[in-house]
Amino acid sequence: MEEVGSQQSSRSAGLNWERAEEVMKAKGIAALIATTPENIQYVIGSQLRASNWTMQIYAVLPADRSTRPCIIIPTNRLGVVAQFGITNVDIFAYSDFFVEGTIEGKPSTPDIDLFYSLLQSTVIHKSPLDALQAALKQLGIEHQPIGIDEMRIAPQILEGIKKTVPNEAVIPSYGLFRYIRLIKTSYEVSRLQEAAVLNEQIEKELIDLIEAGVHEKQIADHYRLAVMKGGGIPAMTAVGAGPRSALPLIENYFHTIESGDQVRFDLCLQLEGYWADTGRTVVAGEPTPWMKKHFDAVKSGWETALEHVRPGVKASDVFHAAVSRVQGEGIPHYRRQHVGHAIGLELYDDLTLSPGDQHILEPGMVLCVEVPYYELGAGGFQIEDTVIVTPDGFEFLTHMERKLFTK
Amino acid sequence: MEEVGSQQSSRSAGLNWERAEEVMKAKGIAALIATTPENIQYVIGSQLRASNWTMQIYAVLPADRSTRPCIIIPTNRLGVVAQFGITNVDIFAYSDFFVEGTIEGKPSTPDIDLFYSLLQSTVIHKSPLDALQAALKQLGIEHQPIGIDEMRIAPQILEGIKKTVPNEAVIPSYGLFRYIRLIKTSYEVSRLQEAAVLNEQIEKELIDLIEAGVHEKQIADHYRLAVMKGGGIPAMTAVGAGPRSALPLIENYFHTIESGDQVRFDLCLQLEGYWADTGRTVVAGEPTPWMKKHFDAVKSGWETALEHVRPGVKASDVFHAAVSRVQGEGIPHYRRQHVGHAIGLELYDDLTLSPGDQHILEPGMVLCVEVPYYELGAGGFQIEDTVIVTPDGFEFLTHMERKLFTK
Repeated sequence: MEEVGSQQSSRSAGLNWERAEEVMKAKGIAALIATTPENIQYVIGSQLRASNWTMQIYAVLPADRSTRPCIIIPTNRLGVVAQFGITNVDIFAYSDFFVEGTIEGKPSTPDIDLFYSLLQSTVIHKSPLDALQAALKQLGIEHQPIGIDEMRIAPQILEGIKKTVPNEAVIPSYGLFRYIRLIKTSYEVSRLQEAAVLNEQIEKELIDLIEAGVHEKQIADHYRLAVMKGGGIPAMTAVGAGPRSALPLIENYFHTIESGDQVRFDLCLQLEGYWADTGRTVVAGEPTPWMKKHFDAVKSGWETALEHVRPGVKASDVFHAAVSRVQGEGIPHYRRQHVGHAIGLELYDDLTLSPGDQHILEPGMVLCVEVPYYELGAGGFQIEDTVIVTPDGFEFLTHMERKLFTK
Repeated sequence: MEEVGSQQSSRSAGLNWERAEEVMKAKGIAALIATTPENIQYVIGSQLRASNWTMQIYAVLPADRSTRPCIIIPTNRLGVVAQFGITNVDIFAYSDFFVEGTIEGKPSTPDIDLFYSLLQSTVIHKSPLDALQAALKQLGIEHQPIGIDEMRIAPQILEGIKKTVPNEAVIPSYGLFRYIRLIKTSYEVSRLQEAAVLNEQIEKELIDLIEAGVHEKQIADHYRLAVMKGGGIPAMTAVGAGPRSALPLIENYFHTIESGDQVRFDLCLQLEGYWADTGRTVVAGEPTPWMKKHFDAVKSGWETALEHVRPGVKASDVFHAAVSRVQGEGIPHYRRQHVGHAIGLELYDDLTLSPGDQHILEPGMVLCVEVPYYELGAGGFQIEDTVIVTPDGFEFLTHMERKLFTK
């Protein structure tokens, strides 16, 4: 069982228990119920993805630490639970599923052993609502206020649960999970660093590929395959060359690189559930004075943003400092909606470095800092890197050069 | 604009307008509002994925055919709309987003031209709720009953919309979309066939890889990379060898193939939003009499299921016929929860060939038919293929041999 078990125990370290406990106490709730894959992973260490929107999968995190988290799953997910060695939870399954046979004296693997034992021991409930109610009952909290991640639960099941709780005391809790997730555990920082390092390694490969005659799509395809080979899942692959470097989000490709083109990268991937989002700008040839001036302005703003990243600083103050600096360094008309965002199990966790964000930075926050500039008809510039807020300021999770690359 | 425009117009052909119109008339609603990526693709021809759960993206399909569908998007998605050439809709954007410059007289691409014109012409609303209300108002239906796909809308926005509609006449409509999507258009059948053909091509490559000494994970990795190379997105990659062939859902890999092992494949991918789900069983060597007997029983059941697939037959009758046949052909204890499912923009569309499903088969339904058998300690067997229900019976979308493969 070594391989399966060790994988599990290292994963569940993602949860910031202290912060979760504090939130549940402050809100007077007896449990937080995760429904989105990200929050489910946050509670139990693995995502259990549904095969369509009707399929309901939940994870219950009780405020009482002496009790175990519970998962509510269709019975056919027992095998997946076994394969990912999720052993620190109580399982409440629902709906029929048939597997025959016995493993006594037969060749087996640790996940089959665990699956077989789960098949023997798991009570099968009639519906996800019944299974969820049984979990709350076993925890002894079926008549107490609870918080439910409202984003991925079928509305009729949410209504059903509300009816069983006194005064319908069910608090929407997607935002509470996001609040808890904002301060990363050391386990999470390691996962985010692995994701960012993979992203940078591949970004270097992409820079090597840049030359006149190469189509944007060849570069994007290389990225996606390299991410898969690295064990990740590719997401937005912004590869914009020449006039298309000025486009913000890029998900389709139309331009062949010409000599002198600038190429803007903004690359997103997931590794074991954790996101990476980094970016650079490259010129296929000699940068023009216009390119140098605008890149330098953007880089100055990005450096100014980082100079303000330390505990006690308000998110909006980082924003204003960065934007003012870019305006003063040669792009007087510079405007921007944010200069960075928290990252974690979601690409955008619950903080942006933006004029309306009143969050005060704290140690353990992980931020993607970016001060891009997009000028249609001219070009676009990007440096984006990931940092962790430390007691003294910040540390980079990544180490690639922050220059205007040339090829 | 050719490339962008033609891509769009071919995609929007996915929608079964007649069926959508019939549903809206029967329910007395003036529009169907899609919120899940699948239903959004169904309305406008492209998925517009959000970067986290708070981001709200909707597509409004008005019952009045003389008006155009509308999309509600964050302003920063205008570029993605342009890149996928989504031109048959009215756009209601929300939240700030800044891009500078002009393209007059500058090098450009069709998507930049469209993006630029969208930036000039699109009104920016304050919030997704404001944008959605503006869309309903422009359609002249802001005080009429509407249907909203309830699965991917923030609950507070759903509450906001309910307050503006007389008697809170907002019908949960995820199920209505699924009902409409059950009868495929010819465009959809082509997309599903392309997805299934890609899946089969790669499955043949996997069969070629099977030999003693190869680890399940090597085969699974080959599948995932091949799917990406083919332009798809890999999903569940069930590669179970030896004792693990008896596991139903497989998402993790622990076994190295030994001589004589049977290997069960159940492989899922998405291509341009449409799913494929096909499977086979292979023996690395000479099948034992036990393997032959059980494979033959499963294959008989699968053939019996197909013999019953024709318009007018109840889904549950297909189920009972197939299960009885397997029981009569040598697995008397055979049990199963379903022997197939509809497939489309979701892996499981709204019909299963199961004891509780009262759907009557109709031409245009696309079904994955599968009669697997799982016996722990012994082995598992699978044939899964995709068929379309025709006026006379069915036609396969795929053509790979349906035998117990040997290597």
